[in-house]
Amino acid sequence: MIKIGICGYGNLGRGVETAVNIAEDMELVGIFTRRAPDKIDGSVKAYSVDELDKFKNKIDVLILCGGSATDLIVQSPAYARSFNIVDSFDTHAKIPEHFTKVDKEAIKGSKVAVISAGWDPGLFSINRLYAEAVLPNGNTYTFWGKGVSQGHSDAIRRVEGVKNGVQYTIPIEDAINRVRKGENPDFETREKHIRVCYIVAEKNANKQKIEEEIKNMPNYFDQYNTEVYFITDEVLKQEHGGMPHGGFVMRNGKTGDITQHYEFSLNLGSNPLFTSSVLVSYARASYRLSLLSNYGAKTVFEIPPYLLSEKSIEELRETML
Amino acid sequence: MIKIGICGYGNLGRGVETAVNIAEDMELVGIFTRRAPDKIDGSVKAYSVDELDKFKNKIDVLILCGGSATDLIVQSPAYARSFNIVDSFDTHAKIPEHFTKVDKEAIKGSKVAVISAGWDPGLFSINRLYAEAVLPNGNTYTFWGKGVSQGHSDAIRRVEGVKNGVQYTIPIEDAINRVRKGENPDFETREKHIRVCYIVAEKNANKQKIEEEIKNMPNYFDQYNTEVYFITDEVLKQEHGGMPHGGFVMRNGKTGDITQHYEFSLNLGSNPLFTSSVLVSYARASYRLSLLSNYGAKTVFEIPPYLLSEKSIEELRETML
Repeated sequence: MIKIGICGYGNLGRGVETAVNIAEDMELVGIFTRRAPDKIDGSVKAYSVDELDKFKNKIDVLILCGGSATDLIVQSPAYARSFNIVDSFDTHAKIPEHFTKVDKEAIKGSKVAVISAGWDPGLFSINRLYAEAVLPNGNTYTFWGKGVSQGHSDAIRRVEGVKNGVQYTIPIEDAINRVRKGENPDFETREKHIRVCYIVAEKNANKQKIEEEIKNMPNYFDQYNTEVYFITDEVLKQEHGGMPHGGFVMRNGKTGDITQHYEFSLNLGSNPLFTSSVLVSYARASYRLSLLSNYGAKTVFEIPPYLLSEKSIEELRETML
Repeated sequence: MIKIGICGYGNLGRGVETAVNIAEDMELVGIFTRRAPDKIDGSVKAYSVDELDKFKNKIDVLILCGGSATDLIVQSPAYARSFNIVDSFDTHAKIPEHFTKVDKEAIKGSKVAVISAGWDPGLFSINRLYAEAVLPNGNTYTFWGKGVSQGHSDAIRRVEGVKNGVQYTIPIEDAINRVRKGENPDFETREKHIRVCYIVAEKNANKQKIEEEIKNMPNYFDQYNTEVYFITDEVLKQEHGGMPHGGFVMRNGKTGDITQHYEFSLNLGSNPLFTSSVLVSYARASYRLSLLSNYGAKTVFEIPPYLLSEKSIEELRETML
């Protein structure tokens, strides 16, 4: 049994707990939190993160379930010295720097650190790579959604007069269909996705001003066609409480004169639960790489597919090729 | 530059030639054939396969472009002793046996032998594996087509009174849509695909008898709903000369109570040209594994994605994660 520790018990941590509990080759050792451990009602005992030191020989892989901006950027290098880890670091521009820092610590500690696992970065990245490798002469397109964007939802909630709100990123059907037909268009940002906001306004707030402020918000919304709808607290709770997401990676490539279309997509009922499930399969890979003494930081690009599966390579060759 | 040899110059061999010629890190050394070499008009010199011995130190990877049933089953073990190879062995039931034979020879010769590369087995297999690993609680579905099935086309051409013919495998839209909606149906064979045959009959042939014989052909057609259309030689040539194919790998999985949908698809203008292009990217992996002294037979399951790309792992991490 692979002994798993969970560090951080938000949506992602609870998802990892669910996924570990159905994995037949894993067992959950503990949940580690910065909150008061006795307030955590998980399926195993919770401890303060300060106690992690005592678990060095009791945990095979520590799955880090914090956010990229403030948690993982510190935790991953810190814990990679003492534990095999997996994280879902998703600040794309900072991945090379994060890799270097984590790699250094993991090498020093003879540990394996899988970084940036999940679906984007993660499965989407893998598909961008495979698609380009097998169709070098072509164009790759990534579409996201329909899904809730956490960053954009946070941004609209900071607007004056906004009590609560959710932002959906929605891919434009017509753009997807053009790529599917084999075209290779150069899209502007606003041609690929629209952004739809559902807002609960404060009493007496100026709704027109809120709408304008959102639509003109630099980087977040100004390059998109954005729709703003005002709803009640109740409707928000009833209809927008889920965290669906997903998207498409597509590539059209030419082999000789012939067009070939490659497509990968995810339609996720819950973004955090799916990401967690991916993290758990990469925890298996992290552990197996450590058994092979293949230490250091790894991304999904460097990990052979079979290391993710509960099944042996012999069984996979026999049943799944 | 990775020096490539092509063994076998049919549709697949010509496709490999096209793909190698656009790869910036590869150079084509020669085409090796069992036919008369002076009858081959490729972009490089052709030689008899008997001359391969002389090329042991001049070829980094030999790409085997024959058929599974009679060519690869013999050639792959034979050549894996002296060359890094790639093949597209696609007799699913015999893959483990083929792997064992090829592995033994490759190990003896300190060579790398990538077997069963292409799209099914190949990219479809990889997606079946990833999908199950990240969504262990669920069902995987593979649909093929719309595409020309070589084996079934051969079978109908052997029917008495048939002069020529082509068979298309077509996935049933309604079945695909049910899976896409998150259902997990148990399909019977005839519920997933239909088979459509376009036949050019001999003069005075009994068309009704041909149709009955095809529809009742054991294994090939009797478990499907099959449509048979009689056409002229001319229409066959004009409308059915291409070799399109493709299909879908889908999985619905539960994480907790939430349904997640994973989908991969290919829409191929030319089956052999795409397969060739995949073989060439795995030739790059074969060569790189040999540089790492990671010898023996390998399948797509054991090969980390980054080994397929022309780009360095640093560039991939920076641009494609």
